[in-house]
Amino acid sequence: MKTELFLIPIAAVSDSLRVLVTKDPTSDRQTFPSIMLKQDLHLHGGTRQILRDLLSGVPFADLENWLNSARCKDRIVDVYDRDLLFEQSQSIAIVRAIALPQEFSSHAKGVWLDAENLFSQDSILAPDSRLFLRECLNQVPLWVKNTTFTFELLSQVFSIQDLRLLVGMLSSQEIDPGNFHRRLKRLDILRPLVSGQQRVHKWEFAWEKSDVLAADGLIP
Amino acid sequence: MKTELFLIPIAAVSDSLRVLVTKDPTSDRQTFPSIMLKQDLHLHGGTRQILRDLLSGVPFADLENWLNSARCKDRIVDVYDRDLLFEQSQSIAIVRAIALPQEFSSHAKGVWLDAENLFSQDSILAPDSRLFLRECLNQVPLWVKNTTFTFELLSQVFSIQDLRLLVGMLSSQEIDPGNFHRRLKRLDILRPLVSGQQRVHKWEFAWEKSDVLAADGLIP
Repeated sequence: MKTELFLIPIAAVSDSLRVLVTKDPTSDRQTFPSIMLKQDLHLHGGTRQILRDLLSGVPFADLENWLNSARCKDRIVDVYDRDLLFEQSQSIAIVRAIALPQEFSSHAKGVWLDAENLFSQDSILAPDSRLFLRECLNQVPLWVKNTTFTFELLSQVFSIQDLRLLVGMLSSQEIDPGNFHRRLKRLDILRPLVSGQQRVHKWEFAWEKSDVLAADGLIP
Repeated sequence: MKTELFLIPIAAVSDSLRVLVTKDPTSDRQTFPSIMLKQDLHLHGGTRQILRDLLSGVPFADLENWLNSARCKDRIVDVYDRDLLFEQSQSIAIVRAIALPQEFSSHAKGVWLDAENLFSQDSILAPDSRLFLRECLNQVPLWVKNTTFTFELLSQVFSIQDLRLLVGMLSSQEIDPGNFHRRLKRLDILRPLVSGQQRVHKWEFAWEKSDVLAADGLIP
């Protein structure tokens, strides 16, 4: 029985959510990067292999650093019987989503497309990938609220404004700057990059405090 | 490559959340019902087969009715490389959760155990099943809020009080009766079972309105 892994790479590029698609050579349709899992290539290895292929333009040490860090997290979207979707495909499709950080997304092999446009009439996204993407986008608001998803998308160092604009875009909500600032202060999940008397402009996420997001949420 | 499906059957029994475990004959540990997926037994068929085995005591027509209804929904928990968890198991484990309705849960083959107690020191739940259950329970509050999960657990016909107590138990919150009543009225997701001048005591969920829960939430 064949088990395929599909990965939906997500990036935040110029204030819109983008997903990376590649062209399926047999059908000329756009699909998400995938790999057939094998006896010696399980989920973890398959995910790593897809990412190493996509990001072969990124310096090796930077890529490995990210892959082994808390910032590199893939999340389950769902699992599908592909024979129920399309008669010709006999496999189980495991679909996972992964946020690519801002410093890598421009190096990725493939085409970044605006997620919303992929549902338009003239989109050439394959029908199964369309289904995978729809379910993935449904879950984005929950990921933004209760996981580190937003911080996985941001570059490692960011300003509060970067963060606020990204949260607003991902959750399709207007985020009030004052309330957001107070909430961040209360959650205490950011580390300043300078200290002392200087005014702080750049921050890092405190990855060891990820549980705070699961319990309290990044936004109400 | 082997792909296994694990199903976590969930029921609400006398005000606590229970999960169904079976005994693994080789290790004497408790595990969740599972099945090896095969070329001719994909996800959908595997889920059905586990359920038909577990619920063989339920009248055939009732069981098939439920299996083919909107009330029977299984949800992904996650997918795991079992070789990363335990050296001796070389497989990919797809873990899904399913709510068994109140009228069936007492007929299920296996032992219903209080979900929280399965983490106690003297629990004999297998380590991998323990991990699966922890992730599943993490997701229950989200399922209660934004999916039909609560209505899948209830019997088909219920009182508002049944619903309120169940939502309170599942979300570990005190649900105010007046606010809950007003919210249900606004969401307009229930169908009364009697009409006219009589006071309504019994309700059904309007399954065609499931989208309302995804958008607005059953609780704030």
